[in-house]
This record gives sequence, structure tokens and C-alpha cells, in this order.
Amino acid sequence: MELLKERILKDGLALNENVLTVDSFLNHQVDVNLMDKIGEEFYNYFKSKKIDKIVTIESSGIAPAYTTALRFNLPLVILKKQQSSILNGNLYETTVHSFTKNKDYTLTCSKDFIKDNENILLIDDFLANGEAVLGALRLFEKSNSNLVGVGIVIEKSFQPGRDKLNNAGLDVYSLAQISKLSKGVIEFK
Amino acid sequence: MELLKERILKDGLALNENVLTVDSFLNHQVDVNLMDKIGEEFYNYFKSKKIDKIVTIESSGIAPAYTTALRFNLPLVILKKQQSSILNGNLYETTVHSFTKNKDYTLTCSKDFIKDNENILLIDDFLANGEAVLGALRLFEKSNSNLVGVGIVIEKSFQPGRDKLNNAGLDVYSLAQISKLSKGVIEFK
Repeated sequence: MELLKERILKDGLALNENVLTVDSFLNHQVDVNLMDKIGEEFYNYFKSKKIDKIVTIESSGIAPAYTTALRFNLPLVILKKQQSSILNGNLYETTVHSFTKNKDYTLTCSKDFIKDNENILLIDDFLANGEAVLGALRLFEKSNSNLVGVGIVIEKSFQPGRDKLNNAGLDVYSLAQISKLSKGVIEFK
Repeated sequence: MELLKERILKDGLALNENVLTVDSFLNHQVDVNLMDKIGEEFYNYFKSKKIDKIVTIESSGIAPAYTTALRFNLPLVILKKQQSSILNGNLYETTVHSFTKNKDYTLTCSKDFIKDNENILLIDDFLANGEAVLGALRLFEKSNSNLVGVGIVIEKSFQPGRDKLNNAGLDVYSLAQISKLSKGVIEFK
């Protein structure tokens, strides 16, 4: 998505070989018009699939997932991150390791909102190590729902997430694929 | 807002005298069309004011704040909740007590995104004890920005938040004001 790549080059900050900050338009301050176009782009890519729900992981994925859900006219479900296991009978839960924060969290979803046989499109802001998406996939497997697509705003293609999701047989569409980062340098695939 | 009140009566769950769960359309699963109408409602109420930014607190306020920001065609800024103090020179931070979770958290915002003299409209999902809004107000005071309005989706009018915000001289617009809750009972003001 050219508009997004241009914006990353203009306003993204490559801090080192691994960290790209896009706080000025995606994570902390949100450009609403860009989010609207991102939703349109995901819709155009995935519209031929039968999809019942759009799902994201709190909280930076909510804005692009919302605009995608609006285009599809479908409910948006936000998976919750908890600090510890909840063991509530009405929740699906799984432990996810965050390499960014170097700690585990518990990803949860009410059994009321992801159900047997539902087709899910998962939207998230970043793909790096892929652990969040694989955690979400485990929740969908527990609920017997089907993850039919994954929409990623920014993929760090040099990190292992993309390969893990390909190996899991997922249809992944990333709007910007970054092949290399270093201080002040951003290269696309 | 009649549409919202009808939805609360239909799908909200009053668990006891204090807790209303609206997980099926606002907090966990999000009804995108309802959020769109909520954004329109906030826009119509606050549109006569000069506003530079829409601000919310992660994460349940993001969807209604996003639709409000889209109507205003303004950037959305998401204040972040941290578990502990960060003491980063480029962040404003303040400690907020959550009565719901009975613990403190640190509310932060980059100095890059709320600035001197900016006029802020704050949008949040719930108003109960008002501590989150007052915490946000402290961040705005640190940044010399002006909180010109507060849009709340659901106000629990029987809790002290509304009075605290009135006492702070804030212009608060709540789309649904709940006067009483008890198990299975929801009454509006």
C-alpha cells in the first residue's frame, strides 16, 4: 500500500535494527483518514472470502480493525491481554510470549463472541515474531472457529513471524513489508 | 441517545448495584454501526467548539473515540496505561487509581502529541468514579492544553464521577445516564 509506505518513510522512526516507531500516525496518535484507507485496503483484499467476524488484539490494532469491520459491516471482537491467568469458565485463554516486552501475558476471549464454525479475519498493527497471531489462532482452535485470513498493517519481514504464519498455512496480507531497519534507515521488501 | 439506551436495555447485563456489562456491543465485541452513530452524536453536540484533537484512554474508548475523530476529521490520541512509572523525559505521566480494579496505574502521553494551547475533546466509554478523566485532565494541565469537552458513552450517574467533573468545571456530555443498577435492573435518569 503505497500511501502507507510513504507515510512510514515520512513519519516512522527507525530506532535500531529491530524497532520502528510509528507513534505519530498508528500506535499513539492515530491518523483517522489513513486508518479509513487501511480498512478499505483490507476489505478489497479479503472481500471474496466468507467472513463472520473481524478480530483484533488490544490495543494498537483496534483502529485499523474497526475500519475493516465497518467496511465489512461485521462485528469487531477485541481479544484481551491479561497479566495473569483468569480461569473463568466462560473465557478461552492462552499464554503468549511477548519478545518486545520479554514477558508472558494471557490472551483471552469470551466464549460468547467467538463460536463454533465462525470464519474470522484477524487484523493487527505489527507482525514481528508472530506469537500474538499464533496465540489468537490457539483461541480460535479452542472455539472451533476458523481463521481465514490475517491482515497486518506493518510486517517486519526480517523477523520470524511471517515464516511461522506461512508454516501454519495462514493467508497473510501485509500492507507494508519491511526488509531492513537500522538507525534512520527503513527499507521495504 | 435513544438508540444506545435501547441497546443497553436489550443487551446490557446488570450484574449488581455497581456493575453493568456491555461486552456484547461496546467493550469486547463492538457494534461498528452503533459506534458510527455514537461518533455522529458526539460530533453534533461538540461541533460548535474549536477542537484540535480527540483524545481517549486505552482501550475500550478507542472505537467510539475513533468514530468521533473521523467525524471531526481530527487526529485521535490514545493515552496509555502503564503498570508503573516510566520517567521518560518525553512523556507526561500521572498516577490514577482504578476503583474498578482497586489498584493504581500510570497514565502517560508523549509530549509530541498533546501540546501547548491545543483544545482537547476527551471521549471515554464509561464514567463511574471519574478518576481516569481527572488523570487525563492532569496530563492536559502539564502540557498546557485545554480540555474543552468530555464525551462519555455510559455514565453511572449514581457514582461520584459526574459530580467531580462538574466541580472541575468540565462540559460533560453522556449519551446514556444510568440512575440505578441492581441485578437484572437498569434504570435511566
